[in-house]
Amino acid sequence: MDVIRKQTGHFLEDFTPGQLFRHKRGKTITAGLFNDFTDFSFTTNPLSKNNTYATLYGFKSLVCPPGLVMNVVFSQTVEDISENARANLGYKDMCFGAPLYIGDTIEVETKILEIIPSSKNDDRGVVTVQSTGRNQHGNVVLTFQRSVQIWKRDSKKIVEHQKLDHADLVEAKPVLPDYDHNKRYSDKAYLTTSDSYFEDFKPGTLLEHSRGRVVTDEHIALTGKLDNTSQVHCNQYLIDANPGKYLGGKLLVYGGIPFNLCLGLSCADIGENALSDVCYASGKHTAPIFVGDTVFCSTEIKTAAPYPEREDLGLLTTVLRGYKMQRQEDDGSWQRIQIFELERQLAIKRRSHYA
Amino acid sequence: MDVIRKQTGHFLEDFTPGQLFRHKRGKTITAGLFNDFTDFSFTTNPLSKNNTYATLYGFKSLVCPPGLVMNVVFSQTVEDISENARANLGYKDMCFGAPLYIGDTIEVETKILEIIPSSKNDDRGVVTVQSTGRNQHGNVVLTFQRSVQIWKRDSKKIVEHQKLDHADLVEAKPVLPDYDHNKRYSDKAYLTTSDSYFEDFKPGTLLEHSRGRVVTDEHIALTGKLDNTSQVHCNQYLIDANPGKYLGGKLLVYGGIPFNLCLGLSCADIGENALSDVCYASGKHTAPIFVGDTVFCSTEIKTAAPYPEREDLGLLTTVLRGYKMQRQEDDGSWQRIQIFELERQLAIKRRSHYA
Amino acid sequence: MDVIRKQTGHFLEDFTPGQLFRHKRGKTITAGLFNDFTDFSFTTNPLSKNNTYATLYGFKSLVCPPGLVMNVVFSQTVEDISENARANLGYKDMCFGAPLYIGDTIEVETKILEIIPSSKNDDRGVVTVQSTGRNQHGNVVLTFQRSVQIWKRDSKKIVEHQKLDHADLVEAKPVLPDYDHNKRYSDKAYLTTSDSYFEDFKPGTLLEHSRGRVVTDEHIALTGKLDNTSQVHCNQYLIDANPGKYLGGKLLVYGGIPFNLCLGLSCADIGENALSDVCYASGKHTAPIFVGDTVFCSTEIKTAAPYPEREDLGLLTTVLRGYKMQRQEDDGSWQRIQIFELERQLAIKRRSHYA
Repeated sequence: MDVIRKQTGHFLEDFTPGQLFRHKRGKTITAGLFNDFTDFSFTTNPLSKNNTYATLYGFKSLVCPPGLVMNVVFSQTVEDISENARANLGYKDMCFGAPLYIGDTIEVETKILEIIPSSKNDDRGVVTVQSTGRNQHGNVVLTFQRSVQIWKRDSKKIVEHQKLDHADLVEAKPVLPDYDHNKRYSDKAYLTTSDSYFEDFKPGTLLEHSRGRVVTDEHIALTGKLDNTSQVHCNQYLIDANPGKYLGGKLLVYGGIPFNLCLGLSCADIGENALSDVCYASGKHTAPIFVGDTVFCSTEIKTAAPYPEREDLGLLTTVLRGYKMQRQEDDGSWQRIQIFELERQLAIKRRSHYA
Repeated sequence: MDVIRKQTGHFLEDFTPGQLFRHKRGKTITAGLFNDFTDFSFTTNPLSKNNTYATLYGFKSLVCPPGLVMNVVFSQTVEDISENARANLGYKDMCFGAPLYIGDTIEVETKILEIIPSSKNDDRGVVTVQSTGRNQHGNVVLTFQRSVQIWKRDSKKIVEHQKLDHADLVEAKPVLPDYDHNKRYSDKAYLTTSDSYFEDFKPGTLLEHSRGRVVTDEHIALTGKLDNTSQVHCNQYLIDANPGKYLGGKLLVYGGIPFNLCLGLSCADIGENALSDVCYASGKHTAPIFVGDTVFCSTEIKTAAPYPEREDLGLLTTVLRGYKMQRQEDDGSWQRIQIFELERQLAIKRRSHYA
Repeated sequence: MDVIRKQTGHFLEDFTPGQLFRHKRGKTITAGLFNDFTDFSFTTNPLSKNNTYATLYGFKSLVCPPGLVMNVVFSQTVEDISENARANLGYKDMCFGAPLYIGDTIEVETKILEIIPSSKNDDRGVVTVQSTGRNQHGNVVLTFQRSVQIWKRDSKKIVEHQKLDHADLVEAKPVLPDYDHNKRYSDKAYLTTSDSYFEDFKPGTLLEHSRGRVVTDEHIALTGKLDNTSQVHCNQYLIDANPGKYLGGKLLVYGGIPFNLCLGLSCADIGENALSDVCYASGKHTAPIFVGDTVFCSTEIKTAAPYPEREDLGLLTTVLRGYKMQRQEDDGSWQRIQIFELERQLAIKRRSHYA
């Protein structure tokens, strides 16, 4: 019998600058997916929890939190871009656009920007791309660049350094409801923490968020529900048959899980009075997460500035860092290991207008 | 850098009789949350499973089962009331009001009723409160009292016994659709067990419900999805760094999980022809649940009485008891340990009117 | 006190040919249930993922994938038919009808066709039944026969071989939206793999699907959410108190889970351009699945034929086989074990009409 094993994903030599992938399937946000990704990470912003509050603020309904937006858009790109990746090196200029709601349908496309063959290893190289997710009305909900280290299919194949001259990048900024002087926002101010308005944040401050959350093997189903097809997250046999080949010899937790957890665990302190996340200038995963690790995080306040053309909002620039505690084998002591770093801008409500 | 670690929750000395907490965030019941809490516990009442049946009975749509109502309302109170609790001592007069539907938004407030410092330990005391959840129309869906043992922030701080003179308690009773003589309820009678109408229950009977359900580490995500922020349910590092401090040296399963399981596991025998749970006069958790424990339950029928002003219904007063089987270390035998007890009233359909 | 332990399920001597069970409760498909069962198994057909695409194709909204349809209908029959079964021997003529949508309510009935006492063991026998699930409009969504080996309540009770003379079987075929010449289907062709149209499949080909998915203890909640009440999937104490009695001495994964996984894992290669599954002539589980097993699958293409009265579609007859890899105790090598086999017909789009 003729046996066919279809290739999925692409290899380094398959990419060309300027190439545009319109990713397959697309994704309608069900109330089930929303529930899975909003609350497991302790998101506390009532825009994502309380429909009365979200509509008072001029949103159509419950707003998908930034971690869900990022995870849905990112995961749509995995099969075409990174299914054969060795490592996801980092995110750049991840910017939010239209709010994402339950019932919306996202489709994502990715443009190849640059290809850099490794100078040390002839079996791999780095591809830089921009991916953009749009809703059913064609409005951008998220766009971001990322760099991925990708295997060659054939290590003898020569791949030249190639770069798009005029990248013509997609841009996005949050589409926010207008401030309405006739609305009594302060009537619902009791629904958020009273010390997380723009006026409360001082550059040079470090918020150590107190809550932690262990990652269980729930990560396998969560990752699958995002359509993230990477086998290192869900194929136990793949690992067990060849444990030395895989980091830690265990199923690896998909980076979007701790990304989402850090956004959620920090929410009560930094994001509860945010109207939206704005842009992540850069981001990277600095250590892997496995089942049993407890994720913690902190937020450093870098700058506080007026939000362009909005007197009711401020623009906060922060660094969100994720951690895990790891027990040392020699003396049993616990070491804090950084797992994640994200330069994060948020649009925060001013107390003067909302409380 | 200025490091801030925000306090969450309150301590004994923060409470005053008469104080009213309007809890933060609120909660819209998504179809995702409904799905997670209705079926994992084997709820079998078709009012919560079959939209055709629920609307025939005059409900707007699928009805949230009592365990979901209780868990949503209770969890909204955790951050303010019991995040720094040592133990949840018990529930009292937990009474149901308007039915809760997918799409409804709950907000909860809690009034402080009494504060009793411990006579033995000067680092703690007991607070008694009444918490009330209302839907977006302002209608009470659940109200209950509970007593919680809470740590002091500063054990040297003197706290006097204080009690509210006129508690002015919120009351609630089930808002039930009227019996409609023109409806052919009996056409759908095959959807429920035929021996669980009001006429079938005899005071002095003990129903040993046959089904059991093991608790897995799913409890961590389930508890998070309820916005229950207590760290003893989800912060593995907290436990591992100091196992002696925590009961069993393991993550503790939030009491709402076995509470929900007992309601669900008993449903086929006792609740399948209930139109609503009415009131829980008292309730308490008598032993902890950990991952791997299998929950069982029984229902003792105490009294059977007419339901006020409703010829089609009866009022059943029962005791629902939860159990787990624990293997003895010495001889490997299994011991049945009671984990939960709830004085439970249900409004049950009469066969004469519905079958 | 009078102690009652209600019997659930039926035994061999309870069945009579011609008997019709209208199963209890029924099931409304929530967006939560849809989310749980569609994506955890890597379903990739955009009819089940992308609302824009599903409505372009003439469906009302997102279409429940076949694994969800099968699991919902099957599970409704468990309490009455197989709660006291020793083994589910196989499926026959499982045929799909009307598409199933979020918000639809399924009710299921089962007719007893034949009863065959075991010639070797007087404590058991085989019952053959036809079960049929209908939506709230009374339209058949799925009908199937199955044979189940069932315990007697009393092994001394004599049960004769009995068979229904005129079975008057329910029939079903997929209710598919018409092909519409005015629609620009090809505008959305990028949402599916380009090499999975009817023209691409050759009889005699074996597709080895590359993805695998480990089964975690998520199976317990998933099975409960289907209302599958069989205790061998969720009652850990039942197993631990008597491990020798149960296969593998562990909680058994409900067969609908690997059934669903095989449909999902094969989807990108075989089902992504299917308009519907049509009929499963026969199916059986050939080895058990436990937590930790990774499920793989393959599809053998048997025949490719025109679809009756539809020029835009082809009818593909295939065999879907599920596998797990099992490490040998003696030499640590891995052996591929078949766990599942399904004769499967699909209605596949022709490239000539859709791309």
